[in-house]
Amino acid sequence: MSRPMHNELAPWLALCRVKGLGCVSFKKLAACFSDPTKAFAASRTELEQVGDLRAETIEGLIHFAEWTEVDNEVSRARAAGITLIPFSDERYPARLRTIADPPPLLYVKGEMVERDDKAVAIVGSRSASDYGRRVARDLARGLASMGFTVVSGMARGIDGMAHEAAMNSGGRTLAVLGSGVERAYPAEHEQLYQRISENGAVISELPIGTRPMAFNFPARNRLISGLSLGVVVVEATEKSGSLITASLAVDQGREVFAVPGEVGASRSRGSHRLIRQGAKLVENVDDILEEIAPQLSTRGHGVISAPLSLPPSASADARKIFALLQENSLHVDEVIERSGLAASRVWEILLDLELQGYVRQSPGKKYAAERSN
Amino acid sequence: MSRPMHNELAPWLALCRVKGLGCVSFKKLAACFSDPTKAFAASRTELEQVGDLRAETIEGLIHFAEWTEVDNEVSRARAAGITLIPFSDERYPARLRTIADPPPLLYVKGEMVERDDKAVAIVGSRSASDYGRRVARDLARGLASMGFTVVSGMARGIDGMAHEAAMNSGGRTLAVLGSGVERAYPAEHEQLYQRISENGAVISELPIGTRPMAFNFPARNRLISGLSLGVVVVEATEKSGSLITASLAVDQGREVFAVPGEVGASRSRGSHRLIRQGAKLVENVDDILEEIAPQLSTRGHGVISAPLSLPPSASADARKIFALLQENSLHVDEVIERSGLAASRVWEILLDLELQGYVRQSPGKKYAAERSN
Repeated sequence: MSRPMHNELAPWLALCRVKGLGCVSFKKLAACFSDPTKAFAASRTELEQVGDLRAETIEGLIHFAEWTEVDNEVSRARAAGITLIPFSDERYPARLRTIADPPPLLYVKGEMVERDDKAVAIVGSRSASDYGRRVARDLARGLASMGFTVVSGMARGIDGMAHEAAMNSGGRTLAVLGSGVERAYPAEHEQLYQRISENGAVISELPIGTRPMAFNFPARNRLISGLSLGVVVVEATEKSGSLITASLAVDQGREVFAVPGEVGASRSRGSHRLIRQGAKLVENVDDILEEIAPQLSTRGHGVISAPLSLPPSASADARKIFALLQENSLHVDEVIERSGLAASRVWEILLDLELQGYVRQSPGKKYAAERSN
Repeated sequence: MSRPMHNELAPWLALCRVKGLGCVSFKKLAACFSDPTKAFAASRTELEQVGDLRAETIEGLIHFAEWTEVDNEVSRARAAGITLIPFSDERYPARLRTIADPPPLLYVKGEMVERDDKAVAIVGSRSASDYGRRVARDLARGLASMGFTVVSGMARGIDGMAHEAAMNSGGRTLAVLGSGVERAYPAEHEQLYQRISENGAVISELPIGTRPMAFNFPARNRLISGLSLGVVVVEATEKSGSLITASLAVDQGREVFAVPGEVGASRSRGSHRLIRQGAKLVENVDDILEEIAPQLSTRGHGVISAPLSLPPSASADARKIFALLQENSLHVDEVIERSGLAASRVWEILLDLELQGYVRQSPGKKYAAERSN
């Protein structure tokens, strides 16, 4: 029943085409078969032992017959300059791998790098107000200058502003589309799309040629939150898709942030509802960092041992800061003052050191060097 | 050592003049001596048994010698049309009696009535923005039209607007001053002061002639929250006295509400901080009611038995609504529709019925008749 494989990516693409095989079933399958080739070669009995796979899915795997289409998709992707990143690939985002329903395969225009693991999403209304756009810009700028990758959905309004501002600050940005990754949606964001693919990546789980249909957007939103440590909702009406993203973020254990606005402004109503439901009210980047910093060293990367000296690869600036903190625990302002480094550089280093488990942040932005024990 | 009393109020006023006798000690004293006259007649040994009274306070009680001044104060109050309401008086607000440090005596210009027990405070910046004033007005209007008494501090800006709007909607209002109650502070609120004393009361714990000194305001703020089920902060800078009121409200077990505004507006920074600390974000009166309604039937009045029929004093409208709810539990909109009564009347009745334990509110503004069990 298995077929000769022309390309190692083919079985991943094939999985995406099996009827009834959603991303949750996929994750189950992935836990049982190290390699999807084996899922296509498995017997009915073996597949039944995976548990909870529908009869339709089992038949779909056994009788899968769309290998030609799969090969064509691989060629089309290659021709369009799209990278296919399967679940097993080391370039597949580590954080996204942890959600309940990760896509078997990502279509990527551009490049994803390791530091994109330190990502925060900024989403919001397509018909944003000047106020909303200004706040989105300031937050994206701040996050980018601290070394965070800004994730969004490349929509008009808040999304577009978040991508732009991150790149204008020299930062990286990821755009997740609810349509095929081969072209810009909305079309007016053609230039933005090009720029993002050069300063980050445009990502989709949908096959090439998938048109932007409303029903694909909620699923897309789970990738925006799945890629991120937290999601910031800047402006959202009461029926905004951003509220879906926020709710998915909660399910995924991500932090949710919302920017308030004036009472009576319809575009702030959704944000206000989120805050009442427990989202953290955000005025500036510090409010985001406070929530996210502890996560960087624990939730994202498991419990970390506490080394006493930095690795040989550490920069001179990082060594300087780590040495200061080994003497005394210091407020971030003191670190900036004593190190003589730029604030954004200090923040970036502190976050990296925290991420790697060398320093620990206490409430009130105090940092201390970890000690091995 | 006790002196003949010319007036039953005299010992209360005397208590206020004993050195080192704060409101917390007063409450301790009140628990031991049913009548303050007895505290002045007590022996040193008896006073020592009260516990935690300072030596200075015990001497002050035993050697109290300012009865002439006390008599003068009673006369002055009478001449100025000020009512003195001691802790023991049934007109002393029930809710205020429960705080840790209730004043032994209130100076009142105007009248306090039983329904002032259903009170909500609205406080905020003296230099309010047009936005803040508009929100304060809308909230005060809404609360007043549902039968709530609006409490505030008669300051410029938010406070003044809250008092005005409550009265303009035919409601009652209480102003708590941080100076003697005999005259308006600030002076430009002379007219407002007159109007409040006719549609509620101006209240102070401070002796006649006390000038408005900054150090008296924090203590005044504890009365604003102490009189209220909850405190709504409309606009507050990061150093605003409203934040003190909010913090006192938390200590007193009162609800704290805050109105958001745009990020970057300095007058919203304090409100945003409160929200981050757990204050409920308020857009409209419903947000306040949701939090406060459950309190009306339990916290404010102890556990209430669940009667099956209304008392003879109940109005025809109340009977109509209670009968509807005995058939089915209904959303408030259905109650309004089926009863044919005005929305504000329905809200008022529902809150009263809930206060008296006849109906119960579930999330989503559904009301049900209580059943005895």
